[in-house]
Order: sequence, then C-alpha cells, then structure tokens
Amino acid sequence: MEKNYAVKQFGSWNNVEGKVFLGEALGLTGAQLSVQKLAPQEDAPFLHAHKRHEEVYLILSGKGEYQVDGEVFPVGEGTLIRVAPAGVRALRNTGDEPLVMCCIQYQAGSFGEADDFMVDGTIINEPVKW
Amino acid sequence: MEKNYAVKQFGSWNNVEGKVFLGEALGLTGAQLSVQKLAPQEDAPFLHAHKRHEEVYLILSGKGEYQVDGEVFPVGEGTLIRVAPAGVRALRNTGDEPLVMCCIQYQAGSFGEADDFMVDGTIINEPVKW
Repeated sequence: MEKNYAVKQFGSWNNVEGKVFLGEALGLTGAQLSVQKLAPQEDAPFLHAHKRHEEVYLILSGKGEYQVDGEVFPVGEGTLIRVAPAGVRALRNTGDEPLVMCCIQYQAGSFGEADDFMVDGTIINEPVKW
Repeated sequence: MEKNYAVKQFGSWNNVEGKVFLGEALGLTGAQLSVQKLAPQEDAPFLHAHKRHEEVYLILSGKGEYQVDGEVFPVGEGTLIRVAPAGVRALRNTGDEPLVMCCIQYQAGSFGEADDFMVDGTIINEPVKW
C-alpha cells in the first residue's frame, strides 16, 4: 500500500541550489511547491502572474525586496506573502547573504466553509507514542 | 480596488509564539496556513488526520521527530513533508532549541494537467523595475 507521506530533507535551507520544483518528488496532488536560493544581490529575471493559482511565498532566510503590481516592499526571514493570480510579481535579493524562499501555489478560490481547519481536521483519541 | 497581495512579517522565525493560523490575515482563498513554535523537548499534544486536505509541513528551524501512521523519522531545518488526508500525524521537538514549523493545507486531488506551473504561470514581457 502506498504510504500516506513523502519527505524531502535539505539538511539546511542554505543547501538549496538554484530553483527546485518539488511537487513530483513529494507527490503533491493539489499544489506545486518550489524552493529557490538567490545569490547576494541576485535579481529576479522576469515578472510573472498566474491564470488561476494563488501563491504563498515564505522567505526562509536572507533579505530582499518583493514587488506586486509595481509596489515594492522589504522582505526577509519570517516574511509570508499571499499573491492573487493576477498580481504581477518579482523578488530580488538585496543582501550580502543568500536569500532562500519557498513558494507554494494552489487553486485560488477553492476553499469553502467545509474547509475550515476545525471541520476538516480530525483529532485521534489515542496517546501519541514515540 | 483590493490589492493583489497581503504580507505578514515576523522579522525572524524565532519570533513566532505558539501556534498562529494566518489564512484570514493573509486572505488565503484556497489554503489554510499556520506557523508554530515548539519549545525544546515539547511534544505534540495529539495525533490528527484530515478529511480532504493534503498538508505540507516545512521545518523552518530546530530539530525534531515526525510520525505518520506510526512511522517515526527525524526532521530539522530544511525538511519538507507531504501528508495525505488519511495520514495520522504528529510532530515533536527533540532538540535544545525551539522548533519552528509552517503547515499549509489545501484540497487533495485538486490539481489536473492545466495546473502545471508552466501552463498556469504567465511571464510578463516587461523589464523588472525596482
């Protein structure tokens, strides 16, 4: 029987090299996920938008700038950004250290009331054994 | 007009306190997202599963153990885990530092061929201005 999980271990976020798409490796069925390391002062090569996917970016380490629809704002470790499909976006590293980010995309507008995490989640009434 | 983005800044992942759900704050429309800091040696209080949501966990910092369906494996900064809805899961911090994680959940099985990131994404043919 197929396992209910898959794991990818980088050891440290700084071990990410270039841009890596992990949807296939992790067996994702409702999202795509990438991690990317930008070198110090490395600029995004292009602006992009989406047709129907909402994106969430997490800045895992480093410092940079992000822009959506021409509005530029600072980002760094601990920043989360939600971008609607139509948002025209780019990211750059403005620091002296690598910037590592994670981007996850999924269907915009696909959540309804039944998707409240308290409704979808089920607590198992058994002690946690390690 | 509503902006095409929303931002949450923690400053550093270590500034996360307890468990924080960010779906509403970020205006997510197809996912729920939480970040959580577990104190050194802090154990998960319960096992849980889901009805229709796939989850992706990212270990942002620290060291711990994760379990799915009774299989336990080590995790730490740089670990990504995909868990199918039925997977019975828990996480604990086994280290001497805080463990900070991010969990994103979305509809399992909601991606089809049109959701390839090369199909859904659109490159904007304009120079990137900062």
